[in-house]
Amino acid sequence: MAKGPDRKFAIGVDYGTNSVRALVVDLRDGAEIATHVYNYPSGTAGILLDPKDPNLARQSPADYIRGFHESVSRAVKAARRVRGFDPAAVCGIGVDTTGSTPIPVDRGGIPLSMHKEFHRDLAAQAWLWKDHTGHAEAAEITEKARKTRAPYLGKCGGTYSSEWYWSKVLHCRRTSPKVFDAAWAWIECADFIPAYITGNLDPERLLRGICAAGHKAMYADAWGGFPSRKFLASLDPKLAVLRLRMQGKAVPADRKAGELTAEVARTVGLPAGIPVAVGAFDAHMGAVGAGIRPGTLVKIIGTSTCDMLVAPLAKRLPDIPGVCGIVPGSIVPDMWGLEAGQSAVGDIFNWFVTHMGPAAYSAKGDPHVNLSREAARLLPGESGLLALDWNNGNRTILVDPLLTGLLAGQTLHTSAPEVYRALVEATAFGALTIILRFEEYGVAVQEVVNCGGIAQKSPFLMQIYADVCNRPMRISRSSQTCALGAAIFGAVAGGAYRSTEAAQARMTGVSSTVYRPDRARAKVYARLYGLYRRLHDAFGTAEGGPIGSVMKDLIAIRDRVRGGR
Amino acid sequence: MAKGPDRKFAIGVDYGTNSVRALVVDLRDGAEIATHVYNYPSGTAGILLDPKDPNLARQSPADYIRGFHESVSRAVKAARRVRGFDPAAVCGIGVDTTGSTPIPVDRGGIPLSMHKEFHRDLAAQAWLWKDHTGHAEAAEITEKARKTRAPYLGKCGGTYSSEWYWSKVLHCRRTSPKVFDAAWAWIECADFIPAYITGNLDPERLLRGICAAGHKAMYADAWGGFPSRKFLASLDPKLAVLRLRMQGKAVPADRKAGELTAEVARTVGLPAGIPVAVGAFDAHMGAVGAGIRPGTLVKIIGTSTCDMLVAPLAKRLPDIPGVCGIVPGSIVPDMWGLEAGQSAVGDIFNWFVTHMGPAAYSAKGDPHVNLSREAARLLPGESGLLALDWNNGNRTILVDPLLTGLLAGQTLHTSAPEVYRALVEATAFGALTIILRFEEYGVAVQEVVNCGGIAQKSPFLMQIYADVCNRPMRISRSSQTCALGAAIFGAVAGGAYRSTEAAQARMTGVSSTVYRPDRARAKVYARLYGLYRRLHDAFGTAEGGPIGSVMKDLIAIRDRVRGGR
Repeated sequence: MAKGPDRKFAIGVDYGTNSVRALVVDLRDGAEIATHVYNYPSGTAGILLDPKDPNLARQSPADYIRGFHESVSRAVKAARRVRGFDPAAVCGIGVDTTGSTPIPVDRGGIPLSMHKEFHRDLAAQAWLWKDHTGHAEAAEITEKARKTRAPYLGKCGGTYSSEWYWSKVLHCRRTSPKVFDAAWAWIECADFIPAYITGNLDPERLLRGICAAGHKAMYADAWGGFPSRKFLASLDPKLAVLRLRMQGKAVPADRKAGELTAEVARTVGLPAGIPVAVGAFDAHMGAVGAGIRPGTLVKIIGTSTCDMLVAPLAKRLPDIPGVCGIVPGSIVPDMWGLEAGQSAVGDIFNWFVTHMGPAAYSAKGDPHVNLSREAARLLPGESGLLALDWNNGNRTILVDPLLTGLLAGQTLHTSAPEVYRALVEATAFGALTIILRFEEYGVAVQEVVNCGGIAQKSPFLMQIYADVCNRPMRISRSSQTCALGAAIFGAVAGGAYRSTEAAQARMTGVSSTVYRPDRARAKVYARLYGLYRRLHDAFGTAEGGPIGSVMKDLIAIRDRVRGGR
Repeated sequence: MAKGPDRKFAIGVDYGTNSVRALVVDLRDGAEIATHVYNYPSGTAGILLDPKDPNLARQSPADYIRGFHESVSRAVKAARRVRGFDPAAVCGIGVDTTGSTPIPVDRGGIPLSMHKEFHRDLAAQAWLWKDHTGHAEAAEITEKARKTRAPYLGKCGGTYSSEWYWSKVLHCRRTSPKVFDAAWAWIECADFIPAYITGNLDPERLLRGICAAGHKAMYADAWGGFPSRKFLASLDPKLAVLRLRMQGKAVPADRKAGELTAEVARTVGLPAGIPVAVGAFDAHMGAVGAGIRPGTLVKIIGTSTCDMLVAPLAKRLPDIPGVCGIVPGSIVPDMWGLEAGQSAVGDIFNWFVTHMGPAAYSAKGDPHVNLSREAARLLPGESGLLALDWNNGNRTILVDPLLTGLLAGQTLHTSAPEVYRALVEATAFGALTIILRFEEYGVAVQEVVNCGGIAQKSPFLMQIYADVCNRPMRISRSSQTCALGAAIFGAVAGGAYRSTEAAQARMTGVSSTVYRPDRARAKVYARLYGLYRRLHDAFGTAEGGPIGSVMKDLIAIRDRVRGGR
């Protein structure tokens, strides 16, 4: 770190699904000296919905812009009350966002939704990561890439997702041609925010982050950037036109996207000219904020999970089936960034408590706490229950949204805490399945650092994870690792540290609590995991024989019946 | 029916699991003119339990004796208030009981438990039908019969049950030799009550009912009655000694067991000498009370179900795998009696409501009613859920107590009424599986008559049963078909009718409500049943491949973990 008598600071701005958080961080030790959260005002908790289409989830780009001003100005204001802080000592700003969240923009890089004509048009908004309207287009892209033997799917698990960039762009082309034709380009939210605050909005000269491009838009230097015009034209000729405007190399987040414009600087109470880092996704910057390094899996546990790993670029990595992204520099520059995830974790526990939890555990206090207390008294295997954690499909390693939850082993005495524990165990088995897939392909996982509210609040869950995965479970010291990671990139892009690793060494850490596997419990869980894998493979793979299609058949019947209502 | 100016009556006495009911019936039309229920005073709701052994369930024979006096005397007293009733006009008494519920007795036929020495000895009590302490002995008997190619299992589904006579007797021999050695014989409760009230207690001259002997004790005229001394000696030499004392032909319930003794008659307010029919099991007499005849399946729906069919003796019936009994005359004399069943139905709904039902449905009113109301609004297939009805194992057609419940298809939106409906549907699929197994072996099922509280109280459930089974579902007119069936046998044994069928024609009937299958719903259910069978065969049979043993493995792990506590 640059020497000097004065303290230095960086600001991380973390765009989540419902709100944006700004965090002011002390560069000496990562101390988080001030923060402010701004909730997006539009729609339902910040999300624009369509009552006729449960797959649709959009956001207002105007909320993002206002959110930057509000969160940063208030965080700076709060920081001013802290001894030693000075706006002039802010040496960098980093930004992370959800993704893939592409925004259609005009020739000048301004979101179409900010034009009066498209103000209320849902297709002209930001297409939030969890928008699944493009599921047919996703299948089409996968099919096309497989048929033409294009290399594009190799590094994203073999299946293109409805959550990703091209599925959304193509779906807009098919269903909202007016918006599509008006859009000069589609820009990921993670690229749009740095472009906006630095004034470098020209879509054709945009400095794109490798994280969004590599994980979600099939970008790789190996094949000359984004997919070829020929491939895109085979999906739709107009996609090839867009491709013409997507030149330049995508870069890691330690690179500078530009400098804070005077106009934006004034509204947030900072000096103009502060370096702004290239943007990346929340989970990726969160992994950096949690201290990710080779051998350490960072697990961000929330309603779903993101599971992040890095490996030296010198290491030859094969394609890993079912792992949704392997991109050089997407997490830590000069390392492979590997992204996997579970499509529901906290969401499953919430579902059980909301829909199935009996009165006895809801009457007084937090039902999660009440159920966990009872469930913690059980031994592994004692309930005779076994569940599959697929209530929201399976992201890794099956990459199949058309899978569903399963619970087996019920008797007439099965209790709610027993089921609750079985659901927690199922998510732990899902976590282990990801770890084993990585290791099977040569990426070792020695320890796990967990972030997110559940990791910090539930020793019950973390101990089960340690016993099931048979690996120590650590907890990130910071409770806002995404914003911290963004601040780290701000610091590096601003020149305060010479590398991301150097900044991580000073600014990140784990809490002193470590959950270590218990030998006897781990042994029982090893047996139970064998049974989990049997169910996993039977219901989740083509090798499942006659029951391999049961879940899909149920969904097909369900959708037909609902369609006929 | 015998002509005459005066009305005639019969009394049915129905020994259930927790109480005994006496019913006074008008022989002209089956009108139920008076009834009284006596709850067994001993143990927990009449059941003697062992806190150290969940498999143990015994009953006090003294409760049975006192129960006869109390229930019959009070029913007669109530009947006296009805115009036209006269105790002298009671022309027969019939008795049904649970079973297999064998009682160890002394040389005079008196239960050992009535001796001071054995008064508190659990092994000296009646071994209630649901006592599973003899599960190892059951497996041993099945194994021995298979190895020696003895014919005994052919008519009881191929597997001997822990609930049955010889498993219990052999378990007593192994674990309570003092009681075993003191017992001159073991008498089924269904035989004991008629013997006791007629004074024909000599165990060696006992007139045994074919129902208990044929369904539970491997009795058949074809092989000379009970199993051979040689076969029994191979299990234990002392069983062969018991066998010596079990002579004589077992007979149907239209035969007279004897006449009411003066002593018993006095205590219940009836004249001495009233004919008493040979006893049988509750479900079998209940089927008669519900009007069973060829082509009509009688389904007694309670916590579990009994599924009863009859077929003319002239019909050649093959062994039917998984059907727990095919016995000539066990239900209607001169017909094959076929018994099948589901090990949990109402128990599964009660489990869900007690352990899983969310507060919203329990706060006000009956949770079953609340959940059914919401669940009835759903269409077949709409929830995407599918369950296996095995929370208490599977009686027919898999005959496997080591199976457990399963629920598949959960999403993050799955609601409690959806699960409740899926559980009801699962029991309907289980019911259809039994029907199809009968038909596969040449026994047609044209309609179903349902008895029991659930059948009468839940149009929601009955309509699902009609749609799933694609057959009309009728409801028995009587709500106490077991006691009514017993009264019918009392009437026939007493000479008031010349045959059981003739008595049924006058004394039984169905209510006017008929649940008819809806074509469109039946079509969806046919598809869902295909999926149910895939799960059924995968988890329940050896053909299930790698997941065929998952449920048993879970139980093995569970039992080992619990054992190590």
